[in-house]
Amino acid sequence: MLQISQRGQEMPPSPIRKLVPYAEAAKKKGLEVFHLNIGQPDIETPPAILNAVKEADIRVLEYSHSAGNESYRRKLVEYYKQVGITVSYDQIIITTGGSEAILFGFLTCLNPGDEIIIPEPFYANYNGFAVAAGVKVVPVTSHIENGFALPPLSDVEQAITSKTKAIIICNPNNPTGYLYSRQEMEALKSICLQHGLYLFSDEAYREFCYDGEYISAMHLQGMDEHVILMDTISKRYSACGARIGAFVTKNKEVYAAAMKFAQARLSPPGLAQIMGEAAVDLPTSYFNKTKAEYLRRRDLLVSRLNAMPGVFCPIPGGAFYAMAQLPIDDSDIFCQWLLESFSYNNKTIMLAPATGFYISPGLGKNEVRLAYVLNLKDISEAMDCLEAALLQYPGRTVRANTDTIQTLA
Amino acid sequence: MLQISQRGQEMPPSPIRKLVPYAEAAKKKGLEVFHLNIGQPDIETPPAILNAVKEADIRVLEYSHSAGNESYRRKLVEYYKQVGITVSYDQIIITTGGSEAILFGFLTCLNPGDEIIIPEPFYANYNGFAVAAGVKVVPVTSHIENGFALPPLSDVEQAITSKTKAIIICNPNNPTGYLYSRQEMEALKSICLQHGLYLFSDEAYREFCYDGEYISAMHLQGMDEHVILMDTISKRYSACGARIGAFVTKNKEVYAAAMKFAQARLSPPGLAQIMGEAAVDLPTSYFNKTKAEYLRRRDLLVSRLNAMPGVFCPIPGGAFYAMAQLPIDDSDIFCQWLLESFSYNNKTIMLAPATGFYISPGLGKNEVRLAYVLNLKDISEAMDCLEAALLQYPGRTVRANTDTIQTLA
Repeated sequence: MLQISQRGQEMPPSPIRKLVPYAEAAKKKGLEVFHLNIGQPDIETPPAILNAVKEADIRVLEYSHSAGNESYRRKLVEYYKQVGITVSYDQIIITTGGSEAILFGFLTCLNPGDEIIIPEPFYANYNGFAVAAGVKVVPVTSHIENGFALPPLSDVEQAITSKTKAIIICNPNNPTGYLYSRQEMEALKSICLQHGLYLFSDEAYREFCYDGEYISAMHLQGMDEHVILMDTISKRYSACGARIGAFVTKNKEVYAAAMKFAQARLSPPGLAQIMGEAAVDLPTSYFNKTKAEYLRRRDLLVSRLNAMPGVFCPIPGGAFYAMAQLPIDDSDIFCQWLLESFSYNNKTIMLAPATGFYISPGLGKNEVRLAYVLNLKDISEAMDCLEAALLQYPGRTVRANTDTIQTLA
Repeated sequence: MLQISQRGQEMPPSPIRKLVPYAEAAKKKGLEVFHLNIGQPDIETPPAILNAVKEADIRVLEYSHSAGNESYRRKLVEYYKQVGITVSYDQIIITTGGSEAILFGFLTCLNPGDEIIIPEPFYANYNGFAVAAGVKVVPVTSHIENGFALPPLSDVEQAITSKTKAIIICNPNNPTGYLYSRQEMEALKSICLQHGLYLFSDEAYREFCYDGEYISAMHLQGMDEHVILMDTISKRYSACGARIGAFVTKNKEVYAAAMKFAQARLSPPGLAQIMGEAAVDLPTSYFNKTKAEYLRRRDLLVSRLNAMPGVFCPIPGGAFYAMAQLPIDDSDIFCQWLLESFSYNNKTIMLAPATGFYISPGLGKNEVRLAYVLNLKDISEAMDCLEAALLQYPGRTVRANTDTIQTLA
């Protein structure tokens, strides 16, 4: 008689974390594992923002305002101004990570059974929040050949039904690293205006744009009612564990409704709000330094990948991810094999199979996501491992010395 | 074309926070406002647990395990053992406040359209999470005359339909302070076993039991598959702003499904987990001291209330709330009037109208909730205010010197 709910059953397990037991087993065997599988930066959390917590004079750690401390929201107004976004403090709700901002968006704007369009491959947890909210994800497929650019407008329009309520993008993108161009952002705008859709914009990686121009959904003119910005300090300041994000919108009705969900959970984390507030005062040099480091890593990673026979990795314009096509039969099997059956100089690597980022069945089977969250030396050694692994992997589909596609196994 | 979702419209605004603008206006006028309206303790957060964060050596504030740090979960096993609850660390998910534990329970165990039975008056946000999850709340009414004891079993059984999946209790209770007896807990057990229902048990106020015996739902034999404990450090350690709670169950399927929701939001707050872990090492004297302080406050508050003509306040056995019946026409109007139109020695009080804790229309109109989260001197002054207010309030229904119920206005 006791049953798990339907959504509890349908809820997808984390595709990034399902290989964890194999990684743990590999480590128990004494192997060193290079973690390129998860977007957990190795960059130091700025000591200044941790010190702000240490120096805070707290007698009672009280609930904050449900929208977050007003002082922090006012500070964020300054931050957003620096990136060309004009908002006021009462258009911001501080959330528990970007995750909660995404959940609030789904709950506030979509009914159960409604549809949301997402260019795939996409951040897998969008689907998790969609299941939690009873919303159907409708993918439009982007392709590795053109670096995962926005699919043609006609594909997006074909996906629109009477139940479509929103489009969600991640820009720069996780998992592809793609950075949407001005033209693409304008195209999304025209679709949203024409069909009356919300545009959810996840801009967690805003500071990490290497090629081309960063265009926020909030930069688009005439879209104030449509845009909901979903933000987080996790990647920006290497503070994933803080769990501080933001839900930002100029749509008063959406804001008011989201506030009711925010009130139900009382307040966002108190100590970490202090970190977020202090982070706005970090000098510009912080981002310059961090961005330069990620850029060096990207360049090394991508050039090493593209030098391997049968491997293709488009150059990601932003974030700290790259998607690579490998000469393999099945990325899930390959990634597990790397941990279970392979080693090189007593080392191996952990990658994220791309299948977890697609919702259309069968896609991503010869693609993996690599997060360049390791230092240059480790990336170099990890690429040595991958190169050796591809030569040994029984499910290799392309001869190392030719371009002929065939299964060798 | 852009619309708020149905649940966004139905989501109730916080009944506790809706009077906030009136309180702010009162303060702007120069009045001192005694806040008895919200369960925000004034007791100092133990410096030892804040210091644990200050002393932590953090280079990168990483995502924790989605179930929370293993070291914290293992420490919590010790804590639960001290309160007679035997669980293992892999039966615990650390959550973002008790709020998230409640949300996980709804999402994991109930389908949209399913029903959950809640003795009313109840913690208003249960209804918020029910709306978010598309679940219908079915109240069974408890009454002030017998101190808000569990309604008769027959009332509970009458409320059960084919869609009923769970009962949620808060013990000791917010808003009533009622502490369920062993017989009542056994009665709930027999209903849950007979009808195959989950028992959600919110035990946020476990440490604050003054009269009678604390019986956890986890103490009930043969209920391992049925019970989900929803817990929080907020009240226990005066750390509401930390946002750390726990979802605890021995039901493996429920645990596994809840873990998928936990993975989607990545991890609970990192800094505050350090606080929670340190809290387990606080000496027993901490609770003895805190409990003694709340007990003194309760006794003062209740005796002052019951000495006022026309007022009845049952003695709450636990938590730090009291519900009082007042000789008033409408608690919403009265509580607003206190802030807008009343003062006594340049002071006034803020109370929570009980209407917000009932879901059955019309109930709670002559009741208010008082949180005794102020020191004895302030409680005493607040009671002076209330006493004076009841004599002046135009909507008074009972003559101060008689028991005749009639509107005097």
